[in-house]
Amino acid sequence: MSAPPRETVDTAPVDAALAGFFTDGTRHLVGAEHTRLWAALRDASAGGKRLRPMLFHSVYLALGGRQTDVAAQVGAALELLHTALVVHDDVIDGDTVRRGRPNVVGTFAADARERGHDAERATHYGQSAAILAGDLALAGAVRVIALCGAPPDSVARMLDLVDRALHLSAAGELTDVRLSLDGDADVPSVITMEHQKTAVYSFELPLQLAAVLAGAHAEHEAALTRFARLLGIVYQIRDDLDGMFGDEAATGKSSVSDLREGKCTPLMAYARTTPAWAQIRPYLVSGTADDDAAARVRLLLEECGARAFVEGLAEELTGEAREAVAHLPEAPLLDEWATAVTRGARAA
Amino acid sequence: MSAPPRETVDTAPVDAALAGFFTDGTRHLVGAEHTRLWAALRDASAGGKRLRPMLFHSVYLALGGRQTDVAAQVGAALELLHTALVVHDDVIDGDTVRRGRPNVVGTFAADARERGHDAERATHYGQSAAILAGDLALAGAVRVIALCGAPPDSVARMLDLVDRALHLSAAGELTDVRLSLDGDADVPSVITMEHQKTAVYSFELPLQLAAVLAGAHAEHEAALTRFARLLGIVYQIRDDLDGMFGDEAATGKSSVSDLREGKCTPLMAYARTTPAWAQIRPYLVSGTADDDAAARVRLLLEECGARAFVEGLAEELTGEAREAVAHLPEAPLLDEWATAVTRGARAA
Repeated sequence: MSAPPRETVDTAPVDAALAGFFTDGTRHLVGAEHTRLWAALRDASAGGKRLRPMLFHSVYLALGGRQTDVAAQVGAALELLHTALVVHDDVIDGDTVRRGRPNVVGTFAADARERGHDAERATHYGQSAAILAGDLALAGAVRVIALCGAPPDSVARMLDLVDRALHLSAAGELTDVRLSLDGDADVPSVITMEHQKTAVYSFELPLQLAAVLAGAHAEHEAALTRFARLLGIVYQIRDDLDGMFGDEAATGKSSVSDLREGKCTPLMAYARTTPAWAQIRPYLVSGTADDDAAARVRLLLEECGARAFVEGLAEELTGEAREAVAHLPEAPLLDEWATAVTRGARAA
Repeated sequence: MSAPPRETVDTAPVDAALAGFFTDGTRHLVGAEHTRLWAALRDASAGGKRLRPMLFHSVYLALGGRQTDVAAQVGAALELLHTALVVHDDVIDGDTVRRGRPNVVGTFAADARERGHDAERATHYGQSAAILAGDLALAGAVRVIALCGAPPDSVARMLDLVDRALHLSAAGELTDVRLSLDGDADVPSVITMEHQKTAVYSFELPLQLAAVLAGAHAEHEAALTRFARLLGIVYQIRDDLDGMFGDEAATGKSSVSDLREGKCTPLMAYARTTPAWAQIRPYLVSGTADDDAAARVRLLLEECGARAFVEGLAEELTGEAREAVAHLPEAPLLDEWATAVTRGARAA
């Protein structure tokens, strides 16, 4: 994603709230291994773009919200939730690296290898650590919302929205695993999965929390939710496009990794319905795609119309998103967000 | 564990609160797979002995607590926390069965096998489902505490105690994985690990929550915590003894499974320091122990003094636990709990 409307929000309060969370947690640490687990989780929560807190906070301010302390806590909770889901997603995907550095799995697996264990046992130790670290972040996210200092009714509603988001992200993640396994997904299934897995907790939830905390009316909240749903899907579609066609230097991620993982994207789902699929499929099955293979697949995805279809879909959904909130006073801010998301460049 | 002082508590309110939690969650379900995930989690939360809610509730009543609705919610949260940890523990241990039936991993792995996938891919799907199901239970546990209806100060303290318990259980679980991997644990390390992994959330937390909710003084809470710590360790030691020497009919668990898993117990840690270890070790390394091997290991553990040592340790710690609370008005109830735990018979 290109630069969001950053001038509207200062991430320092959220960073401070997160720092407070991690410092507070040190009270409970017992021993070196536990301390290392907490440090690895803290690392996992650092280095991100703070997209979700910024979305939340910018809309909260635009809605007239002024409780900066509460907002910082809610922003921190959103980032902790994101961290928890990413850390567990890495276990599920078998990833050991994120943003070019060892993730929680990779960090602890390296420790086990240094103690002389083979790759399989070391990975098991790393994945165990990541399951536990994700648990601490997840429970932390819910607790931070519970204790954010908002009125009890608002807290209860926010906890319900977090619960919904977690439910849908679990449903989407499980669908993702199944679709990748079965390998027969169509475009609507993939879009639904991406909505559930990413758009709900990354876009709908931040805007819903902003609406609740700022006391927006139900209709207002519904319009924001619709905008968030559509834009969240676009965000994920752009990420898929960047993963295949993006400039590695700009996106910071290998353009062959999605291909190697056999990732289930709208691009692939569309291509499956075209004659080009017979030529694309072997590259996915082998799981050993190199740069030449990636270049060939890119060309095939363009020739069969998959790229144009998915880019058109992103454009269409962005238009619908803008329309959903065109009547709202904060439309200019939301337009800026839509522009930032639509421009793409690998998601945080 | 033999029958706890069951007459002191009725589990129906906790069961009702749990039923309410699972019914409420159905609002968020999208699609058949998600519905199946929620049902599998509900199954995972059923069939247990409700040890933690009963411990909590009986002590809460003994301390003069009378907020039955709040207590039912806190009891349900304790059971959800237990469910979350068990479901994630099964992923970490690679287990597919619990209480003789497929667990979450086993249920979803069977689905994938029915769709024609091999064992490795099916297990991955099952483990992914279990990570996600455990997340829903864990977030649910924290949310239920947050919304239990207790005064805000009590809620904040309870959330902090839950946080501590989760931290320590994560530390203990990770230590367990490492000790099993490295295979060189001594008795104190294993006892510390078992305290962190099980005793804190299963014994200390229920009694601490009872104390907070009933408004007990800090000294009173500290005595209860000490009792819970010691008895919680005894509970785990008894479970280890039952796992090796228990009657399968009474414990409901194969007496060779701990051996096959190479489980890191005080029995084995003690035996490692004796000459018998040279004869015991091969049975652990092979991982294919049968009934004959188990009988041979049992004899060796008796001959080398490991069984007597560990049984003596359990007795000693139970005595210390009773002493820690002998001065409290609720000592008779706690004595009953100590008796129930000490008698053993495979833990729930």
